[in-house]
Amino acid sequence: MEQSTGSSNHTRLLSDELKTHIGEVIHIEGWLHKKRLLGGLTFISMRDRRGLVQVVIQDKTEVEKLRGLQIGSVLAIEGTVIEEPRAPGGAELHDPKLTVLVPVTTEPPIEIDKPLSHKSENLDTLFDHRVLGLRNLQEATIFRLRSELLRYIREFLYKRDFIEINTPKLVAGAAEGGAEVFKTDYFGKEATLAQSPQLYKQIMVGVFERVFEIAPAFRAELSATTRHVSEVTMLDVEMGFIKNHSEVLDLVQDLLYDVLTRLYEEHGDELKNLRAPQLKLTPRFPRYSMAEIHALYEKETGKDVSQEIDLTPEEEKWICEYAMQREGSEAVFATGLPASKMKFYHMKGEDQTARSADLLFRGIEISTVPQREHRYKELVAQMKATGIDPDSSGFAPYVTAMKHGLPAHGGFGFGIDRLTEKAIGLNNVKEAILFPRDINRLSP
Amino acid sequence: MEQSTGSSNHTRLLSDELKTHIGEVIHIEGWLHKKRLLGGLTFISMRDRRGLVQVVIQDKTEVEKLRGLQIGSVLAIEGTVIEEPRAPGGAELHDPKLTVLVPVTTEPPIEIDKPLSHKSENLDTLFDHRVLGLRNLQEATIFRLRSELLRYIREFLYKRDFIEINTPKLVAGAAEGGAEVFKTDYFGKEATLAQSPQLYKQIMVGVFERVFEIAPAFRAELSATTRHVSEVTMLDVEMGFIKNHSEVLDLVQDLLYDVLTRLYEEHGDELKNLRAPQLKLTPRFPRYSMAEIHALYEKETGKDVSQEIDLTPEEEKWICEYAMQREGSEAVFATGLPASKMKFYHMKGEDQTARSADLLFRGIEISTVPQREHRYKELVAQMKATGIDPDSSGFAPYVTAMKHGLPAHGGFGFGIDRLTEKAIGLNNVKEAILFPRDINRLSP
Repeated sequence: MEQSTGSSNHTRLLSDELKTHIGEVIHIEGWLHKKRLLGGLTFISMRDRRGLVQVVIQDKTEVEKLRGLQIGSVLAIEGTVIEEPRAPGGAELHDPKLTVLVPVTTEPPIEIDKPLSHKSENLDTLFDHRVLGLRNLQEATIFRLRSELLRYIREFLYKRDFIEINTPKLVAGAAEGGAEVFKTDYFGKEATLAQSPQLYKQIMVGVFERVFEIAPAFRAELSATTRHVSEVTMLDVEMGFIKNHSEVLDLVQDLLYDVLTRLYEEHGDELKNLRAPQLKLTPRFPRYSMAEIHALYEKETGKDVSQEIDLTPEEEKWICEYAMQREGSEAVFATGLPASKMKFYHMKGEDQTARSADLLFRGIEISTVPQREHRYKELVAQMKATGIDPDSSGFAPYVTAMKHGLPAHGGFGFGIDRLTEKAIGLNNVKEAILFPRDINRLSP
Repeated sequence: MEQSTGSSNHTRLLSDELKTHIGEVIHIEGWLHKKRLLGGLTFISMRDRRGLVQVVIQDKTEVEKLRGLQIGSVLAIEGTVIEEPRAPGGAELHDPKLTVLVPVTTEPPIEIDKPLSHKSENLDTLFDHRVLGLRNLQEATIFRLRSELLRYIREFLYKRDFIEINTPKLVAGAAEGGAEVFKTDYFGKEATLAQSPQLYKQIMVGVFERVFEIAPAFRAELSATTRHVSEVTMLDVEMGFIKNHSEVLDLVQDLLYDVLTRLYEEHGDELKNLRAPQLKLTPRFPRYSMAEIHALYEKETGKDVSQEIDLTPEEEKWICEYAMQREGSEAVFATGLPASKMKFYHMKGEDQTARSADLLFRGIEISTVPQREHRYKELVAQMKATGIDPDSSGFAPYVTAMKHGLPAHGGFGFGIDRLTEKAIGLNNVKEAILFPRDINRLSP
């Protein structure tokens, strides 16, 4: 005998489908989300994957079925749909017959109905109760929008002829050298967890010209700030046969414009519920050189930043506000990054600059967007200059790709977590991660 | 001055676009893929992301530009498109003017034009030269089809209201206990690399009802067979509010049918080039119980398998052939798996069976498809019976999800690598992985 989830012969309707069934007897299933008494009536809210249904219970036999049942209990309910403008979705269920599918007898340690994030100053509270906290509608919306961002990104890239790749996360050496990595014993050898698919995506330009990957990346960040996580979900994109560095900037600009515009168009109500700021973007993002930004900043604020190589965090905020006011764009490029700070695989530009730009959005840098050094000899020279052995097992395959011909190419990567955070206007990147990992947190 | 990839004013055309430009002077860019002399003429094949273009060179000045250039060199070519039925794409380029964008002077260690896999008995040769071997058109096609499979899977699941999730790969304990795991030092604590998102996806049923994830999973497989890899790309799917176990079988059946049918419809030519077998599927996959399969197999082969709890590999092959001949389906379910082999999170069925089935395709099991034990008390009992402490940090969040109400649910997972292998009819799962990882191989 197969287990049945209800005695009704009706097909299960979802919460947002009620309004098109006014006057009908229908069947719903979901979680008991809220319960209250009002004027001798019992009101319950039932949660399903689309939202809430309000159910009004008058019949004592039915009310009795709820005795001892806590939030989270799984119920099947048959009832009549009545129009009710004050209820979620404009309709509610009357004269219900309840079937208890999964009784819950323990009170939840948090109020599911109230969001923990935003107002919570203590992130530990948020994540200690994450499993149940995510059942809050606002929390869940964050991750529904995150899933949409992933979908939009892939759809944009498919249209531009990009191929999705999966590259290994267990690697022989640290791809970018230096930075903190997690290590594991790999059958007697030492393996590290990939910090980025950088070398692999460049190798794959030699096969497909245009590739992307969305995958976890690992960083043993010792900093215990609210902003540092040790596992992120990264989008990585690489494009070959570019005419110049600007083409790479155009690509990330078009991607971000397309994805964010679509999110705000298709999910305006949800974003409003989450109190997301209004989106302000122009199809072409303003581009200022580092030198221009330093000069503008000094002129407007009177502060001396002539000794800074990079943008200071204050300057990042400032140039975003400047671009917003002058150009109406919350996204802006800082071009001509200093060559002294570039990675060995970036291409040098003119006058001590790299062919690399920072993409800033809503006050912070979300991506670095360089052209790569694709010329074999120049690359090997740059590797040696930073102390990397081009013949070592971690780098030899990468160098092989250049030696046997890679076209001019460039790319970028950005954290899906960070993008979700900034797209919605959350306070902390961790709020955009289901089960974040940091120096103090390895569970749930 | 930005670097230019060619002197032409024409926009770059791709190899498959030539046939609509017969008689025109056009511009292409790509890799020198092949070079040969024939009747005083020089023929070269140029490779780009869509395929090959044949170029006929007569002019001595142009032939001279190729002197010393090896396969892999990146060229820009302007020339006139001439109809030529024998050339790839039905057209070739005449009177070309060559510009060398990236000269390659080292001969490749393998012949790019010839595929290494299939005929290669030595997998080491295949993977030692992977970076360049992937530039072979047939090798590249495998990964183009793999990218398509990923796209089809997601599109199917989006239509069914599934939400994409990203769960952590650094976890506190081994999710399924026991099996071989990779370990890493996590700021003084011990973390393991996730073997599967099993517990997280079930937790997320409590939030979204329907979730999926495509992500790497790690298994420290000590076996050095050709079939074992230590890093796989897994699809994981979980669905709540099911009426019975059959609904889960229907889901994976509909998914596989949709995705494979679409692959064969949209990529028939490429599959033919790869010598993939013809696809034979029925919308409903045949379903036989384990007991039926044992009985049928004994009857037909005369072999005694009454002592076997599970299907033997020979039986797996046999039942696939049987279903193929009787029902015209290369996919088949073996239902009613033995309860003695079920995991603690599976649901018990009738008479020593589990509510779990194996999905077999083209001779081997590609997925196990169970209903989960969603009842708190029963689950805790099953955990304790297998020696798992429900209060331990690795399992407490999972148990919390049940304690506070999860509906009846089930799901499955399968390797994207394995699916790609079987969909194309490759000899080895590693041929479907860009840079496979096994006991002997941690690079490239």
